[in-house]
Amino acid sequence: MARRLVVASNRGPVSYARDAAGERVTRRGGGGLATALRPLVKHEDVTWIASAMTDEDRAVADEAGGEAFAEQARDGSVYRLRLVAQDPQAYEGFYNVVSNGTLWFLQHYLWGLAYEPTLGAELRRAWRDGYEAVNRAFADAVLAELEHADAAVCFHDYHLYLAPRFVRAARPGALLTHFVHIPWADADYWRTLPHELRVAVHEGLLANDVVGFHAERWRSNFVRVCEQLVGAEWDADDCVVRYAGRETRALVQPISIDVDEFDALRDDPAVLAEERLIVERRPELLVVRVDRTDPSKNIVRGFRAFALLLERYPELHGRVGMLALLDPSRQSLPEYAAYLGAIAVEARAVNDRFRRGDWWPIDLQIGDNFQQAVAAYKQFDVLLVNPICDGMNLVAKEGPVVNTRDGVVVLSENAGACAELGEWALPVNPFDLEDQAEALHRALTMPADERRRRAAAISAHVREHDIEGWIAAQLTEIERLADPAPRV
Amino acid sequence: MARRLVVASNRGPVSYARDAAGERVTRRGGGGLATALRPLVKHEDVTWIASAMTDEDRAVADEAGGEAFAEQARDGSVYRLRLVAQDPQAYEGFYNVVSNGTLWFLQHYLWGLAYEPTLGAELRRAWRDGYEAVNRAFADAVLAELEHADAAVCFHDYHLYLAPRFVRAARPGALLTHFVHIPWADADYWRTLPHELRVAVHEGLLANDVVGFHAERWRSNFVRVCEQLVGAEWDADDCVVRYAGRETRALVQPISIDVDEFDALRDDPAVLAEERLIVERRPELLVVRVDRTDPSKNIVRGFRAFALLLERYPELHGRVGMLALLDPSRQSLPEYAAYLGAIAVEARAVNDRFRRGDWWPIDLQIGDNFQQAVAAYKQFDVLLVNPICDGMNLVAKEGPVVNTRDGVVVLSENAGACAELGEWALPVNPFDLEDQAEALHRALTMPADERRRRAAAISAHVREHDIEGWIAAQLTEIERLADPAPRV
Repeated sequence: MARRLVVASNRGPVSYARDAAGERVTRRGGGGLATALRPLVKHEDVTWIASAMTDEDRAVADEAGGEAFAEQARDGSVYRLRLVAQDPQAYEGFYNVVSNGTLWFLQHYLWGLAYEPTLGAELRRAWRDGYEAVNRAFADAVLAELEHADAAVCFHDYHLYLAPRFVRAARPGALLTHFVHIPWADADYWRTLPHELRVAVHEGLLANDVVGFHAERWRSNFVRVCEQLVGAEWDADDCVVRYAGRETRALVQPISIDVDEFDALRDDPAVLAEERLIVERRPELLVVRVDRTDPSKNIVRGFRAFALLLERYPELHGRVGMLALLDPSRQSLPEYAAYLGAIAVEARAVNDRFRRGDWWPIDLQIGDNFQQAVAAYKQFDVLLVNPICDGMNLVAKEGPVVNTRDGVVVLSENAGACAELGEWALPVNPFDLEDQAEALHRALTMPADERRRRAAAISAHVREHDIEGWIAAQLTEIERLADPAPRV
Repeated sequence: MARRLVVASNRGPVSYARDAAGERVTRRGGGGLATALRPLVKHEDVTWIASAMTDEDRAVADEAGGEAFAEQARDGSVYRLRLVAQDPQAYEGFYNVVSNGTLWFLQHYLWGLAYEPTLGAELRRAWRDGYEAVNRAFADAVLAELEHADAAVCFHDYHLYLAPRFVRAARPGALLTHFVHIPWADADYWRTLPHELRVAVHEGLLANDVVGFHAERWRSNFVRVCEQLVGAEWDADDCVVRYAGRETRALVQPISIDVDEFDALRDDPAVLAEERLIVERRPELLVVRVDRTDPSKNIVRGFRAFALLLERYPELHGRVGMLALLDPSRQSLPEYAAYLGAIAVEARAVNDRFRRGDWWPIDLQIGDNFQQAVAAYKQFDVLLVNPICDGMNLVAKEGPVVNTRDGVVVLSENAGACAELGEWALPVNPFDLEDQAEALHRALTMPADERRRRAAAISAHVREHDIEGWIAAQLTEIERLADPAPRV
């Protein structure tokens, strides 16, 4: 029998719009999280709570009287969707100031602390009137759903750190879980936040029965910060953080991808068309990167490392090229606009320095084209995934599953994925240009049998640990909590 | 009986020069560390090993044939000094690239990781040919001294992380201690360094019998980074890190000041002359800050917080002023030159915005004038000490000991000093302008009896825990290690 679940995430699985004819259309939601959670709907009785993002979302929410309504997934599964229409100004503070403008920077160590951040009244206002308000709206929606019928509640990501505590206060017996999809920073970096805010984040998460992370590093940081900032106690035997008379299990459950989806995409006509374009233009050796233009993705240093490769190994000139498929991201934040500019400047500098005749070292493509990304995954000889810091990074899993050339993955040691794939990828320090340039060279000159062995191992690992496994691990934990008898 | 000690620090207690007449003169070494260690010479049989810094230092080292020679402290105590003449290019890599350009930034969280640092071949070269070479020269000098006679060796600070391991390799039974005077960063921030370098730092320190820190926060970070980066084990009962078959005690021993020296300075004619100048110009309420122009000292945010105070409390206009005594620091590093520029720009902006008539909110004095600093210590109503991160910060101890006005200390929660003085100071989050502005206001409007109580408590604490106590704690630990019988 399907278990009843309430899933709460800022971005939902679908979004609504009007087409040219004025008809309402459903668009598959962007963002890795909504994609990852989609298979859940197949097996379980899911009510999904998300923010109304578009005008049409708000119209849909309004028509439903703010209640949940039935929606159908592409595979025909039925689930219920509840869209929370946020106040636009509250949402601005919640989304741009606190979530993306503060927590994201903090949790990826992106501040140059000598000059930024400058925190104060503006942050506190955005916190109180935005982040708290939106979290309370989510909590209210969750509580309304729990009024209808009991359910386990699954909160997701850095937008919703406070909601669990609001729900817990109203329903002490609720079964609450939270999954954190981004890194957990060390204690000193959390200390940049005003005292009451950093305490609220950790107390919010410790109102859950379970908090999940993609890698041991992030869980271990979380546990230590809980000890240092709110005086919680860690019981390593039971993986439990004790605080304020409650227990919260802190677990490592690495997310993965929908392998079936990528197997199907491999022969998708749109992907094949994109692949033909790449094949026509590709050099002998193709380095690929696929990223949002986020400062945490370390794109500028990646170009510099590629330039160092060309400087050290002139025999590669004319033979190797980097295809960088970059999706513009969060351009309303000035740091992101500046970073996109820095990316363009650096790519141009590398090309100006090394290009000759028809050969341009870097092919920079700014845009959002998923089929093109899958086509590039099929064609890479080297996949460069070098984030400064990354909760997991699914590019490192998607690419190898569809790649056709025994491509090598050069992978940042600070990506959660490195804990799983580091044995078969070439791990690099993302701040170290020399390390990255030499890893690219090693990957480009690796003997065929070693390439094959490494590529096969990564693909096999991802196939064995796919998204269904990640969801099953969470459901097992929910079962265990709902029926604690087996614990005895 | 005096114990034989070998002290090794990059900067020595004195430096040599030629005066206008061409005569050799001895100058008291700058830097807080050389000052702090000076009382050691009074009680113990000390051989001090330091880098030859000036041309005249090199001449002195040369005349001594590279050996130690007798030198006399101002109080008449005799010690031996051994100056190590470093190769200038090696010293540049050691001092500017690695010690101040890399380790200092790392250990104070000063990088904006999206763009900096860009590590690679240059750092590795400076590490190998500079940092390692200079550390080896220090180790060789230590070993030469141990050939003469057995002694306990006391290494100091971030310049000498590798030397203990070089000494240990040659003399496995040596008694080695190391004191780290700056913060120890969290594990993720240490991971910015190339793998072999971050391992070398921690293996170097773990070659000591004791490693000391000024605050529990830094020790606790050190222990955890040892666990995470080199797989060491921490035994909290014995305060011992176990690694590679050895044990290293990790201790918290907060440094302090020479209270007698400051008591004497209070009536020093030069100080009194400076004090008269301050009294003539001072506003009713005087906020003082005394710092090197180091990005870690958070001077720009301090000015912004002061501006926010003036914005929120117009009744203070004309009544309050900030005297900022700033010693230009490390101007050969571009980040420091830029920071000094940012300081001047921000002070000017605040003054342009708020000044009226004769009243200028910020009196910015760039220079190195110790007597003026002591005079300002006597005169402050509020002492602002707001570093981003600081191993200890001795300004927070020096000021209250000589202050005559029951001045209040506004103190960053990220200064080691806050662990000792936070109860009586007003702790602030150094990134939070609102917090700092409100703390300044609270300090400026605090009832006289509360001011008196807090000021007296800080002064009493520092008098009870002065520099002699810090040195005694280290000597006690050395005794214990040299004669382990009492452990049973």
